[in-house]
Amino acid sequence: MAETRMPIITLTTDFGLTDHYVASIKGAILEATTQVQIVDITHDIPPHDILAAAQVIRDVARSFPPRTVHLVVVDPGVGTARRPIIASAENQYFLGPDNGVFSLIFESSDFSGAVHVTATHYMKPDPSPTFHGRDIFAPVAAQLARGLGMENFGEAIEDAVRIEPPRPKVTAEGLIRATVLRIDRFGNVITNLSRASIDALLQKFGKSQLRGGVGAAAIAEMRNTYAEGPGGTAFFLFNSTGQLEIAAHEARASDLLKLKAGDALDIHLV
Amino acid sequence: MAETRMPIITLTTDFGLTDHYVASIKGAILEATTQVQIVDITHDIPPHDILAAAQVIRDVARSFPPRTVHLVVVDPGVGTARRPIIASAENQYFLGPDNGVFSLIFESSDFSGAVHVTATHYMKPDPSPTFHGRDIFAPVAAQLARGLGMENFGEAIEDAVRIEPPRPKVTAEGLIRATVLRIDRFGNVITNLSRASIDALLQKFGKSQLRGGVGAAAIAEMRNTYAEGPGGTAFFLFNSTGQLEIAAHEARASDLLKLKAGDALDIHLV
Amino acid sequence: MAETRMPIITLTTDFGLTDHYVASIKGAILEATTQVQIVDITHDIPPHDILAAAQVIRDVARSFPPRTVHLVVVDPGVGTARRPIIASAENQYFLGPDNGVFSLIFESSDFSGAVHVTATHYMKPDPSPTFHGRDIFAPVAAQLARGLGMENFGEAIEDAVRIEPPRPKVTAEGLIRATVLRIDRFGNVITNLSRASIDALLQKFGKSQLRGGVGAAAIAEMRNTYAEGPGGTAFFLFNSTGQLEIAAHEARASDLLKLKAGDALDIHLV
Repeated sequence: MAETRMPIITLTTDFGLTDHYVASIKGAILEATTQVQIVDITHDIPPHDILAAAQVIRDVARSFPPRTVHLVVVDPGVGTARRPIIASAENQYFLGPDNGVFSLIFESSDFSGAVHVTATHYMKPDPSPTFHGRDIFAPVAAQLARGLGMENFGEAIEDAVRIEPPRPKVTAEGLIRATVLRIDRFGNVITNLSRASIDALLQKFGKSQLRGGVGAAAIAEMRNTYAEGPGGTAFFLFNSTGQLEIAAHEARASDLLKLKAGDALDIHLV
Repeated sequence: MAETRMPIITLTTDFGLTDHYVASIKGAILEATTQVQIVDITHDIPPHDILAAAQVIRDVARSFPPRTVHLVVVDPGVGTARRPIIASAENQYFLGPDNGVFSLIFESSDFSGAVHVTATHYMKPDPSPTFHGRDIFAPVAAQLARGLGMENFGEAIEDAVRIEPPRPKVTAEGLIRATVLRIDRFGNVITNLSRASIDALLQKFGKSQLRGGVGAAAIAEMRNTYAEGPGGTAFFLFNSTGQLEIAAHEARASDLLKLKAGDALDIHLV
Repeated sequence: MAETRMPIITLTTDFGLTDHYVASIKGAILEATTQVQIVDITHDIPPHDILAAAQVIRDVARSFPPRTVHLVVVDPGVGTARRPIIASAENQYFLGPDNGVFSLIFESSDFSGAVHVTATHYMKPDPSPTFHGRDIFAPVAAQLARGLGMENFGEAIEDAVRIEPPRPKVTAEGLIRATVLRIDRFGNVITNLSRASIDALLQKFGKSQLRGGVGAAAIAEMRNTYAEGPGGTAFFLFNSTGQLEIAAHEARASDLLKLKAGDALDIHLV
């Protein structure tokens, strides 16, 4: 027997879990439809950190099936002229404010367009100017998840706001300046270098390996898992989203190397 | 095709998310019915803070559709003679201990009665004296959410426990002493003054505006959104639940004004 | 009308809620089936603390109905030779790495066997060596929850890894050395002594009561609820999972007694 698939809506916000704001969004979704799977991505985006949200939603979307609606509410400009938009990529939908939060979705090779959401009949009447998550985005997410095509919500746009993420830079022959995107709960140091970009750089410079120099510590090894090798030494690893990570067995790499989000990191190709 | 609506049960507790207590309540609900949407409001109510829970459930309930069952387990008297009760208001149900946690629901113009839950056949046999959330409230919530009328759970009562929330006081002609109810994740300062009560007071005193004086800082402006105006200055705003809030663009108002939950706040009508 | 039961999958991890890892697992489950109730037990297991996860899953499983699938991902050895396993007990299923995380399930009187999960056709192709939770465990959990028997996932094993939890020790006639397993959000001190083991010890030594000595403080009373008696005094209580707990009315027992997880605790039978 074929199973009926329930629509999926994911939530990514900077609201935290102490206040009732996330629950209000869920209530507004459930008011429109209860046949839905609502999944929290995270509500711990640092307040107003659009770039952090952009990176998380890029990393997590690939774990969800087609037609998932990803609602991202990191929205310091709520109530102002900034537009609500829907973007489509990899057969999924991304709904949120037009403030750059989908910049990395727009860069996806599968990005297939965006619309400016103007269909007020899908929104709550008299939306609160301070809580579009509840009054505009939640009911729109519910209709989108139920299968209404994104062209029904407004006109296509080509000028969505893009913010520039930190990009790896070649600073000398075989030398790359990367950036620490974030430190995870285990102290793993996630960089802005993807496996694909490293492969391309190694080929370009005719090199085969990476060396990292952070203060006195040199990182020389590439491993496949967190559990290999001696404890307390930092090493490179490609993580589950294909990004270069610095990890350490039985230790927090971020503590060993005194690295934090935003720090620069020099990688030598050797 | 008309969609089958799943019942909704919300959970508000002081249990936190580190221990397994919230999950045990969910397990007990799912034992009774799996065709249900369980929504966490918050589990970060300060331990035993009945008034904080009373305020949250009042603020969030309006975001949920009719027939939602709101289970609130902030229950320092668990296992003692305090009664389990169901209250009904705005076509929703509120289930929890009779310790004042529904005081603000009782004040709702739509409040339509309460019952003392005594129907032990809807509870687990031999309930743990320390965990009525799991053994009494969860199975009752499941039956209530499935549509069983509240009159089936026990006798109507008129003497439910009420606790007195902090009320705004007129301390002089055109001068109101308000109270800070809480600080949210963004540093917004939520007061106990509603838009309706302010409108009534302005009219009573023949005034048109608010001025707040907190230490050296004076708050003079009323804005509609968080993003307007110059950064770093505190202003008034009516928030998404209609309460007077002090916010600040690109800053935490609570830090600027050194305000915390429970603090008094003088508002001048001018 | 008989209600269709949705399968239940619970999640217990050390991933926290700030990163996207938990959501990636949920996405992978929902890719396989959306007709499922996914319940978070906790994601605040201290990083790599297998014993803490073993205790939580033992305590919470009894709150869930038959056929629930409990996925536990506390997996410092992810990607190495450690096996993925399914254990069965009390008509529920426990899925996770073979690192001892199910040691307390194996001790259950209802434990009915374990299999080594080798059926790669139920996993994602090319699983990431650092994220088996998403690529191996989540899709297997979905199939198991939908009703596929555990014998379909691999061969039965009898040599699953067991770790030794701290056991109460009789250190002298009528004197027991217990261990503090954890401190909960309310400051309750949860010990490794069960009601059954205390009953057996009292009978063995012909005693009838407990006395606890922690520094200057003596604990003499056994109560049924947290709310009885004078405030600020520590007392014993059997909690909702049947473990001996030290609690205090209107105070945190852990603060009063300066106890933390792992501490030893002498209990006198008198």
